[in-house]
Amino acid sequence: MPHDDGYWQWSRWVDWLVANAGNATGRGGHGMSARIGIVGGSGYTGIELLRILLAHPAVSVTHVTSRAERGQSVAGVYPSLRGHCGLLFVDPADPGLLECDLVFFATPNGTAMRQAPALLAAGVRVVDLAADFRLRDPAEWERWYGEPHACPALLEEAVYGLVETARDAVRGARLVANPGCYPTAVQLGLWPLLASGSVDCEDLIADTKSGVSGAGRHLRTGSLYAEAADSLAAYGVSGHRHWPEIRQGLTRLAGRAVGLTFVPHLTPMIRGIHATLYARPQAGHPAPDWQALFEQHYAAEAFVDVLPQGQYPDTRSVRGANTCRIAVEPAPDGTRVVVMAVIDNLVKGAAGQAVQNMNVMLGLPETAGLDAIAVVP
Amino acid sequence: MPHDDGYWQWSRWVDWLVANAGNATGRGGHGMSARIGIVGGSGYTGIELLRILLAHPAVSVTHVTSRAERGQSVAGVYPSLRGHCGLLFVDPADPGLLECDLVFFATPNGTAMRQAPALLAAGVRVVDLAADFRLRDPAEWERWYGEPHACPALLEEAVYGLVETARDAVRGARLVANPGCYPTAVQLGLWPLLASGSVDCEDLIADTKSGVSGAGRHLRTGSLYAEAADSLAAYGVSGHRHWPEIRQGLTRLAGRAVGLTFVPHLTPMIRGIHATLYARPQAGHPAPDWQALFEQHYAAEAFVDVLPQGQYPDTRSVRGANTCRIAVEPAPDGTRVVVMAVIDNLVKGAAGQAVQNMNVMLGLPETAGLDAIAVVP
Amino acid sequence: MPHDDGYWQWSRWVDWLVANAGNATGRGGHGMSARIGIVGGSGYTGIELLRILLAHPAVSVTHVTSRAERGQSVAGVYPSLRGHCGLLFVDPADPGLLECDLVFFATPNGTAMRQAPALLAAGVRVVDLAADFRLRDPAEWERWYGEPHACPALLEEAVYGLVETARDAVRGARLVANPGCYPTAVQLGLWPLLASGSVDCEDLIADTKSGVSGAGRHLRTGSLYAEAADSLAAYGVSGHRHWPEIRQGLTRLAGRAVGLTFVPHLTPMIRGIHATLYARPQAGHPAPDWQALFEQHYAAEAFVDVLPQGQYPDTRSVRGANTCRIAVEPAPDGTRVVVMAVIDNLVKGAAGQAVQNMNVMLGLPETAGLDAIAVVP
Amino acid sequence: MPHDDGYWQWSRWVDWLVANAGNATGRGGHGMSARIGIVGGSGYTGIELLRILLAHPAVSVTHVTSRAERGQSVAGVYPSLRGHCGLLFVDPADPGLLECDLVFFATPNGTAMRQAPALLAAGVRVVDLAADFRLRDPAEWERWYGEPHACPALLEEAVYGLVETARDAVRGARLVANPGCYPTAVQLGLWPLLASGSVDCEDLIADTKSGVSGAGRHLRTGSLYAEAADSLAAYGVSGHRHWPEIRQGLTRLAGRAVGLTFVPHLTPMIRGIHATLYARPQAGHPAPDWQALFEQHYAAEAFVDVLPQGQYPDTRSVRGANTCRIAVEPAPDGTRVVVMAVIDNLVKGAAGQAVQNMNVMLGLPETAGLDAIAVVP
Repeated sequence: MPHDDGYWQWSRWVDWLVANAGNATGRGGHGMSARIGIVGGSGYTGIELLRILLAHPAVSVTHVTSRAERGQSVAGVYPSLRGHCGLLFVDPADPGLLECDLVFFATPNGTAMRQAPALLAAGVRVVDLAADFRLRDPAEWERWYGEPHACPALLEEAVYGLVETARDAVRGARLVANPGCYPTAVQLGLWPLLASGSVDCEDLIADTKSGVSGAGRHLRTGSLYAEAADSLAAYGVSGHRHWPEIRQGLTRLAGRAVGLTFVPHLTPMIRGIHATLYARPQAGHPAPDWQALFEQHYAAEAFVDVLPQGQYPDTRSVRGANTCRIAVEPAPDGTRVVVMAVIDNLVKGAAGQAVQNMNVMLGLPETAGLDAIAVVP
Repeated sequence: MPHDDGYWQWSRWVDWLVANAGNATGRGGHGMSARIGIVGGSGYTGIELLRILLAHPAVSVTHVTSRAERGQSVAGVYPSLRGHCGLLFVDPADPGLLECDLVFFATPNGTAMRQAPALLAAGVRVVDLAADFRLRDPAEWERWYGEPHACPALLEEAVYGLVETARDAVRGARLVANPGCYPTAVQLGLWPLLASGSVDCEDLIADTKSGVSGAGRHLRTGSLYAEAADSLAAYGVSGHRHWPEIRQGLTRLAGRAVGLTFVPHLTPMIRGIHATLYARPQAGHPAPDWQALFEQHYAAEAFVDVLPQGQYPDTRSVRGANTCRIAVEPAPDGTRVVVMAVIDNLVKGAAGQAVQNMNVMLGLPETAGLDAIAVVP
Repeated sequence: MPHDDGYWQWSRWVDWLVANAGNATGRGGHGMSARIGIVGGSGYTGIELLRILLAHPAVSVTHVTSRAERGQSVAGVYPSLRGHCGLLFVDPADPGLLECDLVFFATPNGTAMRQAPALLAAGVRVVDLAADFRLRDPAEWERWYGEPHACPALLEEAVYGLVETARDAVRGARLVANPGCYPTAVQLGLWPLLASGSVDCEDLIADTKSGVSGAGRHLRTGSLYAEAADSLAAYGVSGHRHWPEIRQGLTRLAGRAVGLTFVPHLTPMIRGIHATLYARPQAGHPAPDWQALFEQHYAAEAFVDVLPQGQYPDTRSVRGANTCRIAVEPAPDGTRVVVMAVIDNLVKGAAGQAVQNMNVMLGLPETAGLDAIAVVP
Repeated sequence: MPHDDGYWQWSRWVDWLVANAGNATGRGGHGMSARIGIVGGSGYTGIELLRILLAHPAVSVTHVTSRAERGQSVAGVYPSLRGHCGLLFVDPADPGLLECDLVFFATPNGTAMRQAPALLAAGVRVVDLAADFRLRDPAEWERWYGEPHACPALLEEAVYGLVETARDAVRGARLVANPGCYPTAVQLGLWPLLASGSVDCEDLIADTKSGVSGAGRHLRTGSLYAEAADSLAAYGVSGHRHWPEIRQGLTRLAGRAVGLTFVPHLTPMIRGIHATLYARPQAGHPAPDWQALFEQHYAAEAFVDVLPQGQYPDTRSVRGANTCRIAVEPAPDGTRVVVMAVIDNLVKGAAGQAVQNMNVMLGLPETAGLDAIAVVP
């Protein structure tokens, strides 16, 4: 994580402003602002997209859809947006989406794959925050999501938008699959180990803990306060949809097949993911300097912060921020190296990363609109 | 609360930027930025000041003091600031404070009154977030804070910085007493009633609920997670230090003596204050349109938001934001009008309001650096 | 609250055991155990009834109904009961209920009034934990619950089971309306003031705070963890169903009409109610010794504990216990006396009080099965 | 976990009562009750011991010590005990402890090893809830606890009181080391795997999550509500004191040296431990029926509950109960078997297990006083 000197860099922004005025998008319209649509704006990732985009210096949200809330004021449903957003929810079929520069899908799985093709055909770029374009193999998708994929041809084109690992591909993409929350934390945590060949990539364990907002705003008994508070449990041990996504991603990062055990847990927090990752140092090699390995690997990344030796991340240190904060520590008997990676599941694990993808796709500074400091305590 | 059209107003900022470059302060130094010091930067209000000021477009934090942590990196103590702040904690006696344009005291009660006079003498403006300059009567101060006041002469000069009620006085002030958290919510909630003469100001009740961060970062058994979580209790019923502060403020707003019962409660939240206020409509008068009364009273205020009829505020809707969100509702039998006012105790109840005062004192736009949207969920 | 010497009183139980063997109920069946049914056993009050009754020394739960879960094992739905309960959920129409000695209704409002008459006709005693028999006036019931009452004739017979205030009536009752959670805390808190005529009973305010389990296990967005955690809001200010119940109860306790403003709040706790009550000392009388008044009033009550002067109750001190813990404190300016009363909404506010009613109805010791110590921390 | 038919078994208790009257202890005194002392009664394990022992049918707590609170009423410090406990805190040097049948140490590490020898010499049995007698090797103790052991001779005699694994040794013990909270969950979770030889015992991983009460009632910044709430972090990765304890225990259970990586996490819960355990099935053997293995292993244990296939434990299902609830599930690719084990850290992880040890040491029924049902929700 490159250092910022603590003052807001006016000069950088003014320079950028002058250079880019009117050019951020070919569509013009709102002066220099790109026009942005959000499909499925009433869930937690939708509202978080709004929180970030309404403060973004170079885009304008022009359409937010919600089948259930259409016609209602967005700020009426989310009073925290009062004074910041004058939009009404529109129908998901609203033709205005076709005039956007970029549309985010913050919808349940299975929606974007039906609606994205028409948008792409109209020249609209698409970032899908759901799982529709994350798995490259349609058969694998069908196995985990229970129905045939609606546009398998697009699976090949879609770019898996873990930006740090795919910046160039994102830059030219029309369609980006925004990574899942667990996959983001697990892949960023393990990448330096896999890239350096310093661990046995057939023997990886990811023990992950998520806040309850990760389950969305759907009505489920297990998401009730009186069920989830003051308690913790594992789920999906026999098979979770993020497992094939993570394996696919790690395989790409390692350049070879990986073996992974993945166990998610529901934790009494609103936001936050903590991934605790266990890897076995490559036998027969001297162990590398883990700390230096991670610091060098992420030295140029604005959104990945490697903590100093001996300090471990807590999830609140990234609450509301687009940061993945990481520590690495060998187990005391040396048989494992342990990585701890935290993100805010709604920011770097969803809406923030989606905006990071948008920034890259539109040629904006990658950090534009994403420099908020975490809310602590 | 005036409406914002939902897009970040680049043009406004650029205009302001050009007009003000280098002029925000007579001291210059960091280009156009005012130089800001924070005394007592390691507590919760200190860290919250940093969160806000580090993203502020027109000031630079140059000194942060902490007796206990001096010499340590600020971001080492608060990892959430990593990448945003390169400062080290300095000693509270650091002479650099004398070269600041404005210094915030985020210290325990009794500190600012000893250190502020020297700063003021050196031409430094001061905003005290503690209670040292809130009560105008030195005898009253001594009664509630247990020691004689160290500089009673300044009590008269100090401006009580509830900006909405004292904007002009703040504009010219050298020394501002930043209001307490409960007093902010209670006064903003009752002001329209008192100003309009529509209630009996001798019969007011304020039942207030605060998150645990209001108790600060001090080590107290009652602030432990295992004590405060999943529980709620009243405290200070027989006399709380915010009671005389609120009475003094309400007396000023009403233009006559008030009668107030004030009961605070500790609530299992990190942040947030909810004030539930009970007033008796003036006998013999027809009841006013309470909703219209409140909406008109606060129509021009950027940081006070009156909800539509029938909608009540939750504290999370202001989490991290400098907003006071208010609803008013007559009790069903008409004997009382009930006001609900919420703030984030660390923002509008402390650091945010302090920055609002700073903005006004330095001639900056009042909302500069304070337009963050609440973090929900 | 009478003092217990800290040892479990074997002798008391053995005496009782010998004296009562086989006689607690005329129905026999399970040896000395009364046969108990629970209609609506899958909600939070149902499961809490099971937690208490399964450990009760003198009753046997023989039927638990749940339309949605019928045929399933109770302990399968609530794993905390594994090893303690071998029952399956049965249909609400199960004829076995007619052979019970007593049936609890832990159902939504409007169910018991349809099903209770047949049980009563069969000689089964009934305790309704919902609101069906709480209001004595059928018109008032219809106004607040939105439909005509199904058996208005029973409203007169039904005993309002706030045991401390109606022990004799409960003893002979066939049908008991178990008080609501807020009404229990408010009435027990205000009773000594009303009974002693020491306050103006036309000027009462009840500011009440509840944990989220009070909203039941129904799926509602506002009850989701990510909505209710770390937040607090008022609701029902313009009219809550517990308001007429409390007014009716206070009127009975005061012997004259009362004026009451009642505001409930949703609080981020699983369990617990904290009622903060404001009353105006009777004008023209010397104020009584409030502490002595409360201590004497409740000296003989096993489930009401008046704290020593200056100590205030927290809700956790009654978590899981059938205790109402109370403090009384005059406001510093003497214009109000403030009462704080806490209960566990699921115990003294629901299932525990229902069992207390059952004990009295069946001639068992009132504290039988209700002597668990609160779980703290 | 053997099944209980859902009714409280009066007959069992009456039989036991008659048979044992006056004989549970040779000391007599309080009729049939054993005399119990608690050293260090003001912390969380102390108060939890009181909650359990005050309701225990066959013992009397006669002395509770607290250096800081001596002379004060126990129920004054813990209002939840009002009406249940009339004791005052006494000095730790109170000679009355020498007349107890059994004394619990709920003290910081390093206290019991200084005070236990005198008690043992006086014929008092001792259960230490701290770590003083858990490690058998004095050098290992000194390494992890930073000082030489004060009575190394007793280390050999002390019985490690994980009752399920050492019932006979506990029965005859004078001195029992009550296991740590993490070690209890990890050992009970892994025991069936180790005992059956079905996994590679050199490749074990324990990822464990604890509620904040596990850190005790000490004043530490990290235990403050505003620090620990809504956040999660690992700690002690480079070496935690429970690591050698668990390794020693697993080595005993496996009959050979084990390899273990152990990572604890602080979780925003009051109570509860969730251990997620990863083991590699023994190569070259067909995998056993894991579910049957666990069910058979624990079939006779009252306090270990193996959930049905596919159901996973949440920590709240054991809140306040002395149960360890376990599930076992192979990872989808078969390379690991995953065990989930939950306990209440203050009950089965501390005070409840200590009482279980006491019951066995005194010849009482092992479940006496320990049959409370978990408080859910």
